[in-house]
Amino acid sequence: MTPEEFRKYGHQAIDWAADYLEHPERYPVLPAVKPGELTDALPARGPEQGEAMEAILADFERLIVPATTHWNHPGFMAYFGISASPPGVLGEIFAAALNVNGMLWKSSPSVVELEQVTLGWLRQWTGLPEDWFGCIYDTASTSTMHALAAAREFADADCRTKGARPGMVVYTSEQAHSSVEKGAMALGIGQDNVRKIAVDDAFRMRPEALAAAIESDRALGLRPCCVTATVGTTSTTSVDPVAAIAEICRRYGIWLHVDAAYAGSAAVAPEFRWAFEGCEHADSMTTNPHKWLMTPVDCSVFYTRHPEALRRAFSLVPEYLRTAGDPRAVNLMDYGVPLGRRFRALKLWFVMRSFGREGLAAAIREHVRLAQELARWVDADERFERTAPAPFSVVCFRYKGTDEENRAIQERVNASGEIFISGTVLQGRFTLRLAIGNRATTEATVRRAWELICGAARGGAAGA
Amino acid sequence: MTPEEFRKYGHQAIDWAADYLEHPERYPVLPAVKPGELTDALPARGPEQGEAMEAILADFERLIVPATTHWNHPGFMAYFGISASPPGVLGEIFAAALNVNGMLWKSSPSVVELEQVTLGWLRQWTGLPEDWFGCIYDTASTSTMHALAAAREFADADCRTKGARPGMVVYTSEQAHSSVEKGAMALGIGQDNVRKIAVDDAFRMRPEALAAAIESDRALGLRPCCVTATVGTTSTTSVDPVAAIAEICRRYGIWLHVDAAYAGSAAVAPEFRWAFEGCEHADSMTTNPHKWLMTPVDCSVFYTRHPEALRRAFSLVPEYLRTAGDPRAVNLMDYGVPLGRRFRALKLWFVMRSFGREGLAAAIREHVRLAQELARWVDADERFERTAPAPFSVVCFRYKGTDEENRAIQERVNASGEIFISGTVLQGRFTLRLAIGNRATTEATVRRAWELICGAARGGAAGA
Repeated sequence: MTPEEFRKYGHQAIDWAADYLEHPERYPVLPAVKPGELTDALPARGPEQGEAMEAILADFERLIVPATTHWNHPGFMAYFGISASPPGVLGEIFAAALNVNGMLWKSSPSVVELEQVTLGWLRQWTGLPEDWFGCIYDTASTSTMHALAAAREFADADCRTKGARPGMVVYTSEQAHSSVEKGAMALGIGQDNVRKIAVDDAFRMRPEALAAAIESDRALGLRPCCVTATVGTTSTTSVDPVAAIAEICRRYGIWLHVDAAYAGSAAVAPEFRWAFEGCEHADSMTTNPHKWLMTPVDCSVFYTRHPEALRRAFSLVPEYLRTAGDPRAVNLMDYGVPLGRRFRALKLWFVMRSFGREGLAAAIREHVRLAQELARWVDADERFERTAPAPFSVVCFRYKGTDEENRAIQERVNASGEIFISGTVLQGRFTLRLAIGNRATTEATVRRAWELICGAARGGAAGA
Repeated sequence: MTPEEFRKYGHQAIDWAADYLEHPERYPVLPAVKPGELTDALPARGPEQGEAMEAILADFERLIVPATTHWNHPGFMAYFGISASPPGVLGEIFAAALNVNGMLWKSSPSVVELEQVTLGWLRQWTGLPEDWFGCIYDTASTSTMHALAAAREFADADCRTKGARPGMVVYTSEQAHSSVEKGAMALGIGQDNVRKIAVDDAFRMRPEALAAAIESDRALGLRPCCVTATVGTTSTTSVDPVAAIAEICRRYGIWLHVDAAYAGSAAVAPEFRWAFEGCEHADSMTTNPHKWLMTPVDCSVFYTRHPEALRRAFSLVPEYLRTAGDPRAVNLMDYGVPLGRRFRALKLWFVMRSFGREGLAAAIREHVRLAQELARWVDADERFERTAPAPFSVVCFRYKGTDEENRAIQERVNASGEIFISGTVLQGRFTLRLAIGNRATTEATVRRAWELICGAARGGAAGA
């Protein structure tokens, strides 16, 4: 492809993206495809000779887009909403063109330093201690695994050389994200050594149950090495009592990791700072700008007050990558499993500068306001009941009927193509879960979602 | 930012990228910045209010670009050369705009199915068995860690629940990439349990030394669980004798992983297939299209004949992510640590279709031809000696002098801003290492590099 062709098709791509981001609702939020349908529509063998870009772009529109779940759709209310904000997309374009690999300071100083600078800004905006070190991984699951690895290194300096010692135990709540368990499996700690601490009625970890579990394990000669608390759990966005948990961790000398993958972004607005009380005592913390901070996937931020533990767990400098030891020349590859690093800080920098702290806080504030509106509508409707508090922008509720009726409501609503919600199980019962987090979602969208849910409930009750 | 503003700045971004990709040599390949210089030039606090995109773009050009190492520069000959090919950049633009997360089939069928389709094409183009399962991770280090985790699961089904059992041993060569050791550290296997098998004069793992190490460990009651062979090592691109190693693995029932992160792409050209003899007997294999296959970072492909081992090692399906069990509806989150997945297959699909197999093979063939030219020039110059065979596009050589003289040559050449080469240590001596892998590199670039090196050698010898 010649530079002139790239310019031409690049402009076409931008026009497509501009139209798409202006009207993502032209597409059904969930695609009407069956498993294997896209696969069957594509050639089973790749082309021997290069093909014209026109043909590729035509197939993109004809085959790929209709098989895509539209996370940009205002009615995307499943999982956690995310946003391909225009400044974030611009940042990704430059990152793709520069195509640098920031494994070492020397391999691109801009990657390394812009990462430190933007994470410094984010630390200030969210009220975290100034001396924490930050780096960007792909996803929160990767961040969690690195937190567990650093915690283990902290507890057992021989682990690096000798391997995992039996008896290491990790604690988290019943409501924690699956990545805690997965991280423990990956690191060789094992699922059996993850204690899922009971929660209270508001789905928050019970500190006294945590302390009891730690005492019990210590009595057995086991070695508690990490507690993972959550600010904004995946099912209900509940907030673990981090201050109380931190005190327990301090007492027993256990690493505290805070998973704030979703809710961490909310700390840019002062009125949500209450949720982060005690986080300043954590040993590490994760928040995902690619969730609620207008940054395209992937961008998960990991902070720790003990970067040396992370380095001891992961640094291995082979001769062919050795550089001189200036302390400001951070080598990102020393801080985790992946050696190569995309220029992820660039999109974050574009987003932080283009929105400003106020702009991001305003977007989050509006999402929370919309969720609180919905919560009021649910509370005011006697056919429904709320199944969890809604401290942020996620509302859990159910039709007062059977699990099957609720699943039927979810299916009917999702088949509309207008909204996409997920469900979860709370206290043994299936419950609907509506998450607001996309920049295109407005009060009208939420009203329409509630209308569809109420309509489906009538149909569901009738059909049941 | 309004849609019209996005369109305007998007077109500006494309024009910038088109100019940049046409003339990356306008910039010095290595930036003339000191550690901390960019950091000091940026505000210590992020903006409260949003800023104008003009200001952000101006700072991008004024501060970020000059602090960037230009991996697109034709004179980039360090590490392994990579390419932000125009079709790959187009794919990234669409991926950024769609901004989907392919954790589940339902969360975007296009991500999951296009990944399976493109990796099927790549499997065919590189002559791998049809029944292998493939998925995309960020980097080869992540792929290696997943290979070790699957191998361990294969050897010890209790690991998932009980944690790592002491005595697991991993084998690789002295020349293997550091990711094998790092993966073993992360998984709780431990550095002490990684055996670095001796290599022959051409830096290839010695099968008889591997067999002896395995026998010795078995005699001690240890449990050999994985051998990682390399096709295209990082220092010299040497090729381990995979067929012989596979036979040893078969004999002892050990998982064989092949790290072909760099050289794997070469298999699209039939004349390089010799290097992959025996790979069809591997249990898993990695190749990075973001290295030598014109695909922007990050894109590391992992294949395995035992996807069920990978699933057993990593699958954890919490209720809020549960979907119906159609076998064609692959849930990518079941195959590794990261839950979220960018739409990485899109750029790969753009690249594979735009270049075709022939186009990619031609690019690789030309890079190898250029490297062979350079090797001849080195061989013909009595001041220099080659320090390793050059089977692909990397040439290792040294000035016949001290290590200090060679380091001085490297520094002088890299200070030119015209080329960037790395060095490595082979058989105890520092050696220069010139890697060809960027699409802009031509015979003229390589000639100029050789001229600069010869000039620096004269200066180096004089100055020593």
